[in-house]
Amino acid sequence: MQKKQTDKKNENDVRSLICEFLRLFYSNGWVTGTGGGICASFEKDQFLIAPTGVHKERIKPSDLFTVDSTNGSVTCSPKAKTLRLSECAPIFCEIIRQRGAGAVMHSHALPTVLAADISSEKDQLLISGLEMLKGIANENNKSQHLIPIVENTMYERELCEVVSSALRSDLFTKSFCLLVRDHGAYIWGKDIWEAKRHAEVYHFLFEATLARKQLRLLNGSAAL
Amino acid sequence: MQKKQTDKKNENDVRSLICEFLRLFYSNGWVTGTGGGICASFEKDQFLIAPTGVHKERIKPSDLFTVDSTNGSVTCSPKAKTLRLSECAPIFCEIIRQRGAGAVMHSHALPTVLAADISSEKDQLLISGLEMLKGIANENNKSQHLIPIVENTMYERELCEVVSSALRSDLFTKSFCLLVRDHGAYIWGKDIWEAKRHAEVYHFLFEATLARKQLRLLNGSAAL
Amino acid sequence: MQKKQTDKKNENDVRSLICEFLRLFYSNGWVTGTGGGICASFEKDQFLIAPTGVHKERIKPSDLFTVDSTNGSVTCSPKAKTLRLSECAPIFCEIIRQRGAGAVMHSHALPTVLAADISSEKDQLLISGLEMLKGIANENNKSQHLIPIVENTMYERELCEVVSSALRSDLFTKSFCLLVRDHGAYIWGKDIWEAKRHAEVYHFLFEATLARKQLRLLNGSAAL
Amino acid sequence: MQKKQTDKKNENDVRSLICEFLRLFYSNGWVTGTGGGICASFEKDQFLIAPTGVHKERIKPSDLFTVDSTNGSVTCSPKAKTLRLSECAPIFCEIIRQRGAGAVMHSHALPTVLAADISSEKDQLLISGLEMLKGIANENNKSQHLIPIVENTMYERELCEVVSSALRSDLFTKSFCLLVRDHGAYIWGKDIWEAKRHAEVYHFLFEATLARKQLRLLNGSAAL
Repeated sequence: MQKKQTDKKNENDVRSLICEFLRLFYSNGWVTGTGGGICASFEKDQFLIAPTGVHKERIKPSDLFTVDSTNGSVTCSPKAKTLRLSECAPIFCEIIRQRGAGAVMHSHALPTVLAADISSEKDQLLISGLEMLKGIANENNKSQHLIPIVENTMYERELCEVVSSALRSDLFTKSFCLLVRDHGAYIWGKDIWEAKRHAEVYHFLFEATLARKQLRLLNGSAAL
Repeated sequence: MQKKQTDKKNENDVRSLICEFLRLFYSNGWVTGTGGGICASFEKDQFLIAPTGVHKERIKPSDLFTVDSTNGSVTCSPKAKTLRLSECAPIFCEIIRQRGAGAVMHSHALPTVLAADISSEKDQLLISGLEMLKGIANENNKSQHLIPIVENTMYERELCEVVSSALRSDLFTKSFCLLVRDHGAYIWGKDIWEAKRHAEVYHFLFEATLARKQLRLLNGSAAL
Repeated sequence: MQKKQTDKKNENDVRSLICEFLRLFYSNGWVTGTGGGICASFEKDQFLIAPTGVHKERIKPSDLFTVDSTNGSVTCSPKAKTLRLSECAPIFCEIIRQRGAGAVMHSHALPTVLAADISSEKDQLLISGLEMLKGIANENNKSQHLIPIVENTMYERELCEVVSSALRSDLFTKSFCLLVRDHGAYIWGKDIWEAKRHAEVYHFLFEATLARKQLRLLNGSAAL
Repeated sequence: MQKKQTDKKNENDVRSLICEFLRLFYSNGWVTGTGGGICASFEKDQFLIAPTGVHKERIKPSDLFTVDSTNGSVTCSPKAKTLRLSECAPIFCEIIRQRGAGAVMHSHALPTVLAADISSEKDQLLISGLEMLKGIANENNKSQHLIPIVENTMYERELCEVVSSALRSDLFTKSFCLLVRDHGAYIWGKDIWEAKRHAEVYHFLFEATLARKQLRLLNGSAAL
């Protein structure tokens, strides 16, 4: 009984935090136009996931779905019957299973789109030479950090396959982010707090990489 | 009686929402300098419209005009006699009648001006290759989305004619947005919530299209 | 007595509004680093002016000086003896006397600096082809709007002379703004509300003119 | 007793102000991703320093460490045992001792990184031709203001050495800022209010210098 109450409190805290972070991400321009999303676990394999097609900054704690990440099944639905589960759910579950993530956010921020555009490689983006790399778990400021880029697909189920494949690559074992061309990014962490930190770090890294590329192009040389 | 109370509550909710969204749009830089505007219906053919020439972020629910969209007549005026109806009203009504819109917003955001500037075609802007296109009703991320651009006019009545003409074109049947060169954009939806979503989606699409055009120009080629 | 109370209420309203607008301007990046300022009248020739060298977003209604604009003399000082009158005061008074302004704001925003940088003429900036020009009193969207640019000076008294001279020029009779190279802008209106509207309009116009200049340069031609 | 209470009140005020400024800096994009930091003194040689590796906008007054700047020793730790002292602490203490600073902030803002990138000199950035230079103590708008740039290092202790060396240089005696390549900036003042003002002024100067450099490059000449 005591334990159940503690568990319930933890679940409610995560519900509140998800809504707070959605408001924060919205004000950053990461989840506007009802795009983007977030999920976070409140106990082993049980994830709270935001609904799809709604204004993300207005989601209430009671609007979230509970999903079992081992098989993607919905274990608890919000009372509001008009709400539908985020189409990101299968991708979230794939990332959770492959990376042991405790939280994943999905960004539609413009710099995530442009970062994929400017990469010299079609299927990866290299980031280096920035202290902010220290903000990624297990990385340091001398790291040559590789982020996978996958092509966008028309349907969510196709995207799930390419995401799964990219995450299995040996190249990207240190990445907590995956870019989807023309679309956005998935960013994760061991818990919701690390996912928030990683989200801020990666968005900074994309903006910095983009700004430096523009300065190099303006300067007419690869070496500014 | 019961029904009337429900109707009145709905009208008051729309009044509050209009003011809330004007504050949001103002903080986004879409309706500064007293520019821009919004209208939304609270019952069939009855639209609440913001007054002209006032600081949009400071409009109160009681400051709105009620207009019959079928003929543009004012059916209810705010008590404050200094307020004048938005000059956008005839354009709002034209969009409502031709598109069955339940809400229209008018943006003076800089990216709406620059998006028209960079289009290779004088009277249309093509947007493609962005997941965010899914945020437009009935579109998907493979769409070749065409938005009409009309030339700005000195007087509102002239603008109404060119808007009307553009909306009748077969090219733009899927667009929920119309750009006015040197001026801004009209963006609509079936209700005020869809108009808000479309406003966020289109502003993102303009910023993305602009940023990509700049990267291509910097890179010295049409194909980045 | 009744009249005095009304006058006092009006003065207090202006005091509050000045502080509110300073917080707004600060959040816009117009008066950071203790820079920038504002003044507004509460009765004929009596202006409330913000102190110098303090964090502008933290000024309280009781921190303002009262200055007689006809001769620049301080008619009432704030109780806090550490506060000093804004060094803009003589420039504010010059603008008030020459233009009959009821309020003047001084911006240190980056676009005001860059707008002067990109002008093809050393002592004036031409703005045209923007609907937002309608936001300037007595202008329309076909106006060829000329804004004076003066060179920055080391001391405030020298700046006052060049400002005075520019305002006397026949070229700039329609302008409610004066740019100071490397420094910022003075923007005014018949009252504090018009000054706020003009501030928003001119900052938009500078950003738009700058963005268009950059697009033309990127495109390698004067005619984008 | 009376004095002790006054001292305690002063310490509590500084604790609150540190947390308030961290929220402000966070909203400016200066301390995102748990990066950046701040310290400020509440009595001679006693500095309150933010913990490391935590979300800076969420730090509470009771989360701060007290450090003796003369030797860097921790004289008081927060009750929360999971908190660790900022790795900036030795660098903060070095700046405090060499410059007599009463407060130092550490920024991870993108413009601080790009400002070092665009400097024509490897180990210094020259800023001139901006009124905002008056916002730096003892400088004026005609100053040729030199800011040291040091190379980033893998470990904090190495960075401390290069910072110490740069601060001893005769070139940079007037600077209240030090840039670390690929990393960010340290900015200080005689007290926490001057440090805030200097932080706003230097960030503006970096943005202005960057924007002007881009305009010159776009224009294809050193003299725009």
